[in-house]
Amino acid sequence: MAAPMFERVALIGLGLIGSSLAHVMRREGLAGHIAGHARSAETRAEVARLGFADSVHEHPQDAVRGADLVILCVPVGSCGAVAKAIAGDLKAGAILTDVGSVKAAVVADVSPHVPDGVHFVPGHPIAGTEQSGPNSGFAELFTNRWCILTPAADADAKAVEKLTAFWRACGSHVDVMAVDHHDMVLGITSHLPHLIAYSIVSTAADLEEVTKSEVIKYSAAGFRDFTRIAASDPIMWRDVFLTNKDAVLELLSRFSEDLSALQKAIRWGDEDQLVELFTRSREIRRRIIEAGQDTDEPDFGRSHSE
Amino acid sequence: MAAPMFERVALIGLGLIGSSLAHVMRREGLAGHIAGHARSAETRAEVARLGFADSVHEHPQDAVRGADLVILCVPVGSCGAVAKAIAGDLKAGAILTDVGSVKAAVVADVSPHVPDGVHFVPGHPIAGTEQSGPNSGFAELFTNRWCILTPAADADAKAVEKLTAFWRACGSHVDVMAVDHHDMVLGITSHLPHLIAYSIVSTAADLEEVTKSEVIKYSAAGFRDFTRIAASDPIMWRDVFLTNKDAVLELLSRFSEDLSALQKAIRWGDEDQLVELFTRSREIRRRIIEAGQDTDEPDFGRSHSE
Repeated sequence: MAAPMFERVALIGLGLIGSSLAHVMRREGLAGHIAGHARSAETRAEVARLGFADSVHEHPQDAVRGADLVILCVPVGSCGAVAKAIAGDLKAGAILTDVGSVKAAVVADVSPHVPDGVHFVPGHPIAGTEQSGPNSGFAELFTNRWCILTPAADADAKAVEKLTAFWRACGSHVDVMAVDHHDMVLGITSHLPHLIAYSIVSTAADLEEVTKSEVIKYSAAGFRDFTRIAASDPIMWRDVFLTNKDAVLELLSRFSEDLSALQKAIRWGDEDQLVELFTRSREIRRRIIEAGQDTDEPDFGRSHSE
Repeated sequence: MAAPMFERVALIGLGLIGSSLAHVMRREGLAGHIAGHARSAETRAEVARLGFADSVHEHPQDAVRGADLVILCVPVGSCGAVAKAIAGDLKAGAILTDVGSVKAAVVADVSPHVPDGVHFVPGHPIAGTEQSGPNSGFAELFTNRWCILTPAADADAKAVEKLTAFWRACGSHVDVMAVDHHDMVLGITSHLPHLIAYSIVSTAADLEEVTKSEVIKYSAAGFRDFTRIAASDPIMWRDVFLTNKDAVLELLSRFSEDLSALQKAIRWGDEDQLVELFTRSREIRRRIIEAGQDTDEPDFGRSHSE
């Protein structure tokens, strides 16, 4: 049997991403030993029961000791504190990475704590579901998804190369980009859509003329699509919006402008503008499907049989 | 074999809804004869090839002649013109209904053309996918979905009862409500979500800092969910927004207010408000799933295996 890619991998945080990484590492034989840390005793007990880690630790320091690869899988707002806590126990030559949806804030928070000889390579797998917790993970989560790495200009090339090989072994494609560009790209493809989904759920829930049970009963008319991403982990998303504040607020202004233009087109009955916009949207959907980033089955392939 | 519920049913319009109705009527034996009309020769040829109608007519008058049930399955903006065209050929005692997403405008446009002795009962099945055209239909589309009827106060009770039985036989639950209330309920559960989805797709497509190919590549981060409903039929949606203009503009104002409040919470770092809002959204998602109006599989049950 070939030697694993890493002797020991430490997963700091064992929610959807951490547990999915454990499953795919097991399946692909990428780690000699998977050490996990979760802050809550309840999560640790659940992980022990599920058995996807070789050891589960109360203190992150114990998980990272001797690890060749350390992956921070905690909400982005917690990365700085965790990095500080584990700094003294990181092995020389280890690769330290994360999976956060915001990169500038993580780099700013984590970098000051990274000891000499440890290679910090920030990362972000563009993968997830609306579920969270250690029992929501599965090995196929990263298959055919993109993982973005945002190494500093002076990052260790070997470390970047090895982390790239790791994500490819997890089933992902890997891209490298600058930190700020990442935060703008994810701002539009992820943060703004989530923000808007949360906002429309709020509008619907507060409407006086329509009861909440009507909103729920007739949600298949479109609303339910928004509720899925608005069901994502609240703490994770609070951190994303607050740590990528500038990009999110900028994108929100652009969105509000576009929405006002659409509002005006409706008010004045500008049929051509509406049809042109709606036709263009169809085209973008088609390109997403062609790129293998969504299913072409109607209704996301939801079952209509029951 | 039991007699069918209707001797002859006319489907005026043979897109997603019309073709799905034909399929479910066939499966359930609800019609002795299914007569279809489509405006375009191309669609009629496709329907003839697919074979889900017993006769396909170039002129709607020929389809409705002798029909006991006439269902308008055209964009809401076309209902008035079609009603005018078929008025002289409707059979005495026939039930005339529609499937439009807006009810006040359809009632205003169609009612003046309904001859004495014909029972007009407006309807709206809350069902669909982002696909359109005669080959997009399937018999299970209405299963476990709601169909809303909005009969006038003086509507023929027997006709309402028979149409209710028809939709139940198609697999749906049936609700009755007032026209204006329908348009507000659908405004929030359907029209506003679609409008916002179209708008965010527009914002993403126009962003200078991020290329369109990046938006597509990383769309699995959330954006792709919005593109599904933004891929719906452009003409249908143009008509919906323009014919339900007042409710849509009112809801859009409410949404903009809520979005501003959220923007302010992010700007000022109001963590508690964000977590409270995001937690509440999760609860609404849970209730939609409990009500059987969406799947509880992560990611809408999209396949992660390829």
